[in-house]
Amino acid sequence: MDLIKPYKKEFSYSYTLGAFPTIELIENCPELVTEVILSPALADRKLIIELCKNNNIKVTESQKQIERLSDKENVFIIGIFRKKEEPLCKNCSHIVLVNPSNMGNLGTIFRTALGFGIRDVALIQPAADFFHPKVVRASMGAMFHMRVQYFASFDEYSNVYGKKPDSCRIKENQQQDAYERLMFPFMLGEKQYLSPKLCPKDKLFSLIFGNEASGLDESFLKVGTPIMIPQSEDVDSLNITIAVAVAAYIFTYGSR
Amino acid sequence: MDLIKPYKKEFSYSYTLGAFPTIELIENCPELVTEVILSPALADRKLIIELCKNNNIKVTESQKQIERLSDKENVFIIGIFRKKEEPLCKNCSHIVLVNPSNMGNLGTIFRTALGFGIRDVALIQPAADFFHPKVVRASMGAMFHMRVQYFASFDEYSNVYGKKPDSCRIKENQQQDAYERLMFPFMLGEKQYLSPKLCPKDKLFSLIFGNEASGLDESFLKVGTPIMIPQSEDVDSLNITIAVAVAAYIFTYGSR
Repeated sequence: MDLIKPYKKEFSYSYTLGAFPTIELIENCPELVTEVILSPALADRKLIIELCKNNNIKVTESQKQIERLSDKENVFIIGIFRKKEEPLCKNCSHIVLVNPSNMGNLGTIFRTALGFGIRDVALIQPAADFFHPKVVRASMGAMFHMRVQYFASFDEYSNVYGKKPDSCRIKENQQQDAYERLMFPFMLGEKQYLSPKLCPKDKLFSLIFGNEASGLDESFLKVGTPIMIPQSEDVDSLNITIAVAVAAYIFTYGSR
Repeated sequence: MDLIKPYKKEFSYSYTLGAFPTIELIENCPELVTEVILSPALADRKLIIELCKNNNIKVTESQKQIERLSDKENVFIIGIFRKKEEPLCKNCSHIVLVNPSNMGNLGTIFRTALGFGIRDVALIQPAADFFHPKVVRASMGAMFHMRVQYFASFDEYSNVYGKKPDSCRIKENQQQDAYERLMFPFMLGEKQYLSPKLCPKDKLFSLIFGNEASGLDESFLKVGTPIMIPQSEDVDSLNITIAVAVAAYIFTYGSR
């Protein structure tokens, strides 16, 4: 058997490293899984073998292959899956990340977004490769419940998802604003402070966050309602995963 | 000159790796700094040299020393500081971490806590070494604004900080409850959901979080008012840094 190679961005497939993300993968996207590799040292293998059998997934045992694909110890299960990028849901609220660069942060943001019920994430390029095994692992498999889509620019995103619905297609008795989307760029400085009062009850929202080091530039002031998360002057800023978490919580469970 | 050795837990000193945490160190705890090491490749050195001069801190230039202490590239400044553990403030609200094990998480939690105005963190052992350069770096130097204290057990913490003030020492006109501390263990399951209504306006609070993998055990149900952060059933749990951030935000700025 030819050994499968360590991950590269240009591959049409990627890997889940570890039991938890592999099970999330198989349970949520069985059609994408091409193979599951087990370490001979894996003791408790009944569940994973049954799961693969029920989904007609090939199982291979190979310690050599496990070591070749994983950079960490304590990995006993690896899943191989075909990459598939999915368009965002037009009728759902989104998180928009402009130029996210850190793979661990990106995975943690997926896990957090899903935790607060947001399943759609737009990535404005240049952006980290969300199929990288490090992102998959940091997401704890959350990404297999989500839709993630790349855009060449924020304008490209905004043109597709930011427009109001075509008015001529709305019938008279329909609620005109039902699918209106409000944009909230998160920026430092004298903006509106985050508050449950800002969160729309009957409209869609997009929460927009900048790069870890540089944030969002001034052009985003015009994009919607800029918001700042109140914070002590003793810190330069919050970590991006923390900012996304607090904002997403307040816009979902925190304003119910 | 003898080369300074890579960090070990038993050392009485530790290191800040990089310009940002080193400047935070010098500005907040100049009395702890014993030396600052610069890379010959550091271009913009005026500020750091002036800061050291004003605080009578020895500056050494040595690329060899920088490489020996740092595991990452792009480190041009390292500070060496004496470790000093400080008792928590009795009249302040606290974050209590029971058996935190991940150093990056610990540093991120320091930065987040400070960002929301909480300067006191109790660590219940076994716990990660909060002086480790990885923690210092992840905290972005926030720990130099804070008090962090180890306890052998939660009971030890509770005995020192959880008791009501000795009533015989309270004078008649004094507010009896002014320094009462309410305990909030964060646990999964059918508990009270996090809400600004739970946050005491005129009492101190301690927000208690368990280990990354195992959480808090059932014994914490009796410790105070158990709280759950509402979250989707699609995730197993939230990352600990995310849970601390959302809880700390709601208890501070989010309930004002």
